[in-house]
Amino acid sequence: MNTLIIGLPKGSLQEATFLLMRKAGFAFTVNARSYIPSGDDPALEARLIRAQEISRYVELGLLDAGITGYDWIMENDSKVIEVADLLYAKQGLRKVRWVLAVPEDSPIRRVADLQGKRIATEAVGLTRRFLERRGVRAQIEFSWGATEVKAPSLVDAIMELTETGSSLKANNLRILETVLESTTKLVANPAAWKVRWKRAKIEQIAMLLQGALLAETRVLLKMNARRRDLKGIVKVLPALHAPTLNPLSSRGWIAVESVVEAASVRDLMPRLKAAGAEGIIEIPINKIIP
Amino acid sequence: MNTLIIGLPKGSLQEATFLLMRKAGFAFTVNARSYIPSGDDPALEARLIRAQEISRYVELGLLDAGITGYDWIMENDSKVIEVADLLYAKQGLRKVRWVLAVPEDSPIRRVADLQGKRIATEAVGLTRRFLERRGVRAQIEFSWGATEVKAPSLVDAIMELTETGSSLKANNLRILETVLESTTKLVANPAAWKVRWKRAKIEQIAMLLQGALLAETRVLLKMNARRRDLKGIVKVLPALHAPTLNPLSSRGWIAVESVVEAASVRDLMPRLKAAGAEGIIEIPINKIIP
Amino acid sequence: MNTLIIGLPKGSLQEATFLLMRKAGFAFTVNARSYIPSGDDPALEARLIRAQEISRYVELGLLDAGITGYDWIMENDSKVIEVADLLYAKQGLRKVRWVLAVPEDSPIRRVADLQGKRIATEAVGLTRRFLERRGVRAQIEFSWGATEVKAPSLVDAIMELTETGSSLKANNLRILETVLESTTKLVANPAAWKVRWKRAKIEQIAMLLQGALLAETRVLLKMNARRRDLKGIVKVLPALHAPTLNPLSSRGWIAVESVVEAASVRDLMPRLKAAGAEGIIEIPINKIIP
Amino acid sequence: MNTLIIGLPKGSLQEATFLLMRKAGFAFTVNARSYIPSGDDPALEARLIRAQEISRYVELGLLDAGITGYDWIMENDSKVIEVADLLYAKQGLRKVRWVLAVPEDSPIRRVADLQGKRIATEAVGLTRRFLERRGVRAQIEFSWGATEVKAPSLVDAIMELTETGSSLKANNLRILETVLESTTKLVANPAAWKVRWKRAKIEQIAMLLQGALLAETRVLLKMNARRRDLKGIVKVLPALHAPTLNPLSSRGWIAVESVVEAASVRDLMPRLKAAGAEGIIEIPINKIIP
Amino acid sequence: MNTLIIGLPKGSLQEATFLLMRKAGFAFTVNARSYIPSGDDPALEARLIRAQEISRYVELGLLDAGITGYDWIMENDSKVIEVADLLYAKQGLRKVRWVLAVPEDSPIRRVADLQGKRIATEAVGLTRRFLERRGVRAQIEFSWGATEVKAPSLVDAIMELTETGSSLKANNLRILETVLESTTKLVANPAAWKVRWKRAKIEQIAMLLQGALLAETRVLLKMNARRRDLKGIVKVLPALHAPTLNPLSSRGWIAVESVVEAASVRDLMPRLKAAGAEGIIEIPINKIIP
Amino acid sequence: MNTLIIGLPKGSLQEATFLLMRKAGFAFTVNARSYIPSGDDPALEARLIRAQEISRYVELGLLDAGITGYDWIMENDSKVIEVADLLYAKQGLRKVRWVLAVPEDSPIRRVADLQGKRIATEAVGLTRRFLERRGVRAQIEFSWGATEVKAPSLVDAIMELTETGSSLKANNLRILETVLESTTKLVANPAAWKVRWKRAKIEQIAMLLQGALLAETRVLLKMNARRRDLKGIVKVLPALHAPTLNPLSSRGWIAVESVVEAASVRDLMPRLKAAGAEGIIEIPINKIIP
Repeated sequence: MNTLIIGLPKGSLQEATFLLMRKAGFAFTVNARSYIPSGDDPALEARLIRAQEISRYVELGLLDAGITGYDWIMENDSKVIEVADLLYAKQGLRKVRWVLAVPEDSPIRRVADLQGKRIATEAVGLTRRFLERRGVRAQIEFSWGATEVKAPSLVDAIMELTETGSSLKANNLRILETVLESTTKLVANPAAWKVRWKRAKIEQIAMLLQGALLAETRVLLKMNARRRDLKGIVKVLPALHAPTLNPLSSRGWIAVESVVEAASVRDLMPRLKAAGAEGIIEIPINKIIP
Repeated sequence: MNTLIIGLPKGSLQEATFLLMRKAGFAFTVNARSYIPSGDDPALEARLIRAQEISRYVELGLLDAGITGYDWIMENDSKVIEVADLLYAKQGLRKVRWVLAVPEDSPIRRVADLQGKRIATEAVGLTRRFLERRGVRAQIEFSWGATEVKAPSLVDAIMELTETGSSLKANNLRILETVLESTTKLVANPAAWKVRWKRAKIEQIAMLLQGALLAETRVLLKMNARRRDLKGIVKVLPALHAPTLNPLSSRGWIAVESVVEAASVRDLMPRLKAAGAEGIIEIPINKIIP
Repeated sequence: MNTLIIGLPKGSLQEATFLLMRKAGFAFTVNARSYIPSGDDPALEARLIRAQEISRYVELGLLDAGITGYDWIMENDSKVIEVADLLYAKQGLRKVRWVLAVPEDSPIRRVADLQGKRIATEAVGLTRRFLERRGVRAQIEFSWGATEVKAPSLVDAIMELTETGSSLKANNLRILETVLESTTKLVANPAAWKVRWKRAKIEQIAMLLQGALLAETRVLLKMNARRRDLKGIVKVLPALHAPTLNPLSSRGWIAVESVVEAASVRDLMPRLKAAGAEGIIEIPINKIIP
Repeated sequence: MNTLIIGLPKGSLQEATFLLMRKAGFAFTVNARSYIPSGDDPALEARLIRAQEISRYVELGLLDAGITGYDWIMENDSKVIEVADLLYAKQGLRKVRWVLAVPEDSPIRRVADLQGKRIATEAVGLTRRFLERRGVRAQIEFSWGATEVKAPSLVDAIMELTETGSSLKANNLRILETVLESTTKLVANPAAWKVRWKRAKIEQIAMLLQGALLAETRVLLKMNARRRDLKGIVKVLPALHAPTLNPLSSRGWIAVESVVEAASVRDLMPRLKAAGAEGIIEIPINKIIP
Repeated sequence: MNTLIIGLPKGSLQEATFLLMRKAGFAFTVNARSYIPSGDDPALEARLIRAQEISRYVELGLLDAGITGYDWIMENDSKVIEVADLLYAKQGLRKVRWVLAVPEDSPIRRVADLQGKRIATEAVGLTRRFLERRGVRAQIEFSWGATEVKAPSLVDAIMELTETGSSLKANNLRILETVLESTTKLVANPAAWKVRWKRAKIEQIAMLLQGALLAETRVLLKMNARRRDLKGIVKVLPALHAPTLNPLSSRGWIAVESVVEAASVRDLMPRLKAAGAEGIIEIPINKIIP
Repeated sequence: MNTLIIGLPKGSLQEATFLLMRKAGFAFTVNARSYIPSGDDPALEARLIRAQEISRYVELGLLDAGITGYDWIMENDSKVIEVADLLYAKQGLRKVRWVLAVPEDSPIRRVADLQGKRIATEAVGLTRRFLERRGVRAQIEFSWGATEVKAPSLVDAIMELTETGSSLKANNLRILETVLESTTKLVANPAAWKVRWKRAKIEQIAMLLQGALLAETRVLLKMNARRRDLKGIVKVLPALHAPTLNPLSSRGWIAVESVVEAASVRDLMPRLKAAGAEGIIEIPINKIIP
């Protein structure tokens, strides 16, 4: 059987990625001391690798595909196909940002003021290329971690990842500029992408990951409506996807179903009831393919 | 934007309340060291306050609404609007009771025997008013906790909260009389209740909380039935809410759906099958607005 | 009221069994230091007993029914009615095996080579009867646990339970032969099985346990289809259970619902979409009675 | 046998108190659901009671002695004998303070500015008496906890316990004035103090508690010295307690031993070595009676 | 190098045994999935085996020595040398007892009343031999655990281990008779005991284990005394071991040292101080060889 | 006051280092989200920095001193003063090694075979310089972690840290050659080392760290001996440090004290007893300055 090799990120994104893969229908179990998780799909093998390195090995063709951050693809300057954008991160469903930051009371106000300064970062390549584009020369040093505590006593500025900004704030740092916004990506090796069965497998994974991600913020609403109230009820429901209407045995009654954003239910339910809907129920969803 | 301020109970009811609010559609996250949980609805702000104090601050108007126990509303003798009864407590979906209790082998047999005795309680006001109504004079002292271990060595009787009675039993205490039955309430400040948008917001919260609570004990049953078996099947289903009947493409077949009590399913399923239902499935529900 | 007594397995199967019973509709709570879990069905009482002993007490009639492994029924050689096969074990939904095993580098290659050797096992009866059937005489000693580390320093071979084989492998043991495959069983006392109400209750439990087990590997797929695509879509869906087809208000559209294996969804969804299905959603199921 | 009854504080001081009692030679074990810890001295029984209440029950004579905070003795205005000062608190060996505090940006600058304001506190009696002495009238309300988050939204000021000040700082509160400094005390009932055997037992407890507390900050230093270096070495050692000098078999050598503060060792050792001491060793101590 | 093989008990005694061995000077580390702990003495190898089985393998000579309970030596009727008595058990330094017990309200009052009854136990051999000596015939069945909950619903009586009696009490069981008192033993294989170096090694282990056990309940008291007070001070100290007296440089002063029971210190210290001792300090001890 | 700045290693060495500093007499507490631990010596401030970076910042003079591994000093090629060798690592008191390793079944047998291969490592500098010295050209890539799982699927060889070798073994790797042995070092900035008070402070820290480390493997033995046995007893004790001999009041008795290696006690005690020593006790030690 043909088997695709995919790189999954070890470390901070690991738990969220494995959970999402499981929701998508691919259950992998990590074995202690092994970097090959055991899975339930004979057509798909995984390798557990640091997010920082995945795009490098996808580019080299040692992996057919991989899930990693856009930031590390850029840092490594890897030639890979970006198949799908997966909007999740370790703390929830949102983008992360790489920012240049300085201490609150630093005289540095703009990127140009970094000329000749010392900057610590885990993303030396990203930082170097960004400053070059801005015509700024600075001493960029690799940071092994805990970068946000280094300014001002050890360096003048840092280039660091932030999800909510709370760690920067807690360390009294001021954002100078956002250098890069990043989301998680499903990427493929260009040669693998040209192989028919590999591409089909990668596209299947992309479709199911997106279907599982979408379902995390959606629910199914079901309700019964009198035919005469139907128009008002349908108007309340989001216009994008037409609700499914289904005539019931009781004359004059229609069953209405609609997939809606979970966060909108608190507003929809009172309005649907006011519009005449009865027996409104909300049901959880595992996956959606629109 | 108009923003309503609601008090949520810190402590023993906290986890259950936040879970219920989340199910209702209002997700709040508690921040360490802050009493202002962060939420996802710009029209609703929460304050985390001891259940014992919430009705006091709702009465003063420092909160527009609050979720607290009926017992503490009574203890504080607060003038508030009781908007909704929410039947849950820290150990499950049931009422709690305040009881006067004495050691198993105490000579005290009735409330009248408490004349001149010493009683420990966290609810001094409730106890005083109850005994006054019964014409009993006693020395009531405030207990900082662990009240149930104080009798008989430190006091003659206690007035204490009990959910299952197991703590009283474990301490060899005998219940003299139930003074108050209490459930959780959604309450509102009377002035706030008269403001149109505040009342609308409070009513929305009440509807969704009750919808989420109801859904905890309900599931959706779906099955297919031959038209000739329909009458028998419908008879098995609870009479209150008529099931939704839906003619299928296969001639002579009807899809039947009904929301039923989860606890009744173990009895319904065998009877529905016996009555001819096929493909019976049980599906979880997040919320119900009847 | 008539009350049935059922034995539930204490120990490694306990958590999985209580979870399954709860899904089936029978919620039991274990009390510390008591072997009588408290339940929510007045017609059913449970006793918490080691899986090794349950069939013995069902045979004696001290329990009307019990959930235990086929292996221990055999080990105890108990005369009980096997009512239902419940395919689950402590690590998942699969069979377990009892195997005779020896160290990787042992000269013992076949069962016959065990003649005159010393064998450690927790299942002395099973082992003795198996070897007798094969005409092999060996010294079988009862093992109090950690059997897999005993060969070769303390015994020549072991007879041990294995679910995935990983523990045998980690101890450098080679399987000689599988002696018994075992699954979990619902068993009944023969006399109880003849009492009408007892049998009805046991059958109800069997139906619901199987309905809950089945639902663990099934989901509900819903989608909308144009009438002209229907045939192609139905062909993709598993043939066993015909999907439920339901004409919608929109002319020419049909709602299609089908219960399918969860593990097949990753393959079905892309093919259903390719066949023209729209708005495909996957919904979790608690129970199924086919 | 005569048995003394002592109250030990349940809650935040509990762990530190039980540890200290154990070091002093009185091992008590807390039993779940009982307020009578089991001990190893037949002449001493303990009762586990909230620190807030202990002085009240010592005053009433229901306890012969108790360990509690000076603050709660004052709050309860209890007539008890203060037998010993025990300098420990839940976070270490130091005093705690009750302070009046207001939000950082409050216009209230002095105690006098509290006139007519609302103050939340767990120590209503302390606060009332303090403000009366200052001629300030304010509305003091009992706080059930989390007092430090209540200002400014619910009250104007708080009166609260602080050990390190970090909780006040984290809540942006400014200390107005320290109302009371408090340490832990061993107290006795005045009548019990007059009974010869009770007083002897209480004094024994006091001596051993103080001996154990003292030993927490002391170590034994041992070293060998040539007689000619002795004077210089002794000068380095703290003057308070003369070191023990012990002639050795080797002519001209003296063994020197001294109990010193553990925190001073890092400075003493280099200086002792420089003064000629050899084989300096530091040994832990369990108890000291000077 | 000659290497002795010792069996150490896996399970309930494991942690206490490894801790004691470490105190005695033999540090072993348990490796997951291996039954051979790694140690720091090339002359001593350990095997981790259930306490129930150790004496069996010592008797067979597969182990030279072992640490196990006297009860299991008796149950297995093993021919081994009892080298040393080690007074410890999983809950502390005391003996455990095997008792015959019946439900509180059972009509069985004496051992003789067990005639014809059913008894559950983990120690079938012990029970059978005890009853034979008493001339009682009963049906004894092996219990896989949780024996104490089986009476009266599944058996008439149990034979069970008890350390504090609390588990029996919690299950409403009444002790009929104590069958065996048991402590932990160091045992040796009779042939190994005759080999000079093996016996020397086993005796070294015995001496150090007893030295470490003894030190757990002893401390060193040191104090200074004036020569004139010496006689009074020495009288206070336990007579068994004469204290070490050491003349100090200061004329007329003596340093006094004595190893005493830790539990006696709370009484000794006040009396020593009253007798004139100064600078009394208590110092912990790791091992004692008297 | 003069205050020295010392860098302490964040991460795997952190816990062991803080424990050792505390034993040495410098107690630091790590604050969440701060890289400045709070300490109890006003003359010493600490900074929490990755071990990989400490020597870099000591060299730059941003830190006066630091505790870090010899390996990272070499990797960074830092010009610092090595003040003291501290033999500890995260898993115990021993050296760690950096080794070049390849898969068990790799054709690579010697360092020379690495010509043209790809090697992953966290220590790119060390690896590059080592191979240059051997005249080997290879592609060395930085590894973000989990290096030991990368060969052979992603790289041909790795250069990795090993403490016990167990991780290499578990990943089926064979050591090619040891590149560097490393211990923990106390290092100083050359300019700071020339400042009198800084050097005195650094030397104090060195002396106390070494005193605390030494004490971890030493204990104090005390015993009494008859004068006639003294020679034999002293011969048993290690010759290096002469024991302290102290004539007792009892004529003809001598108190003997000696600091010995803890690991030797299991052999010494039986031999001392055989030589006539009485009342041998072992006492723990916190620090030793020889």
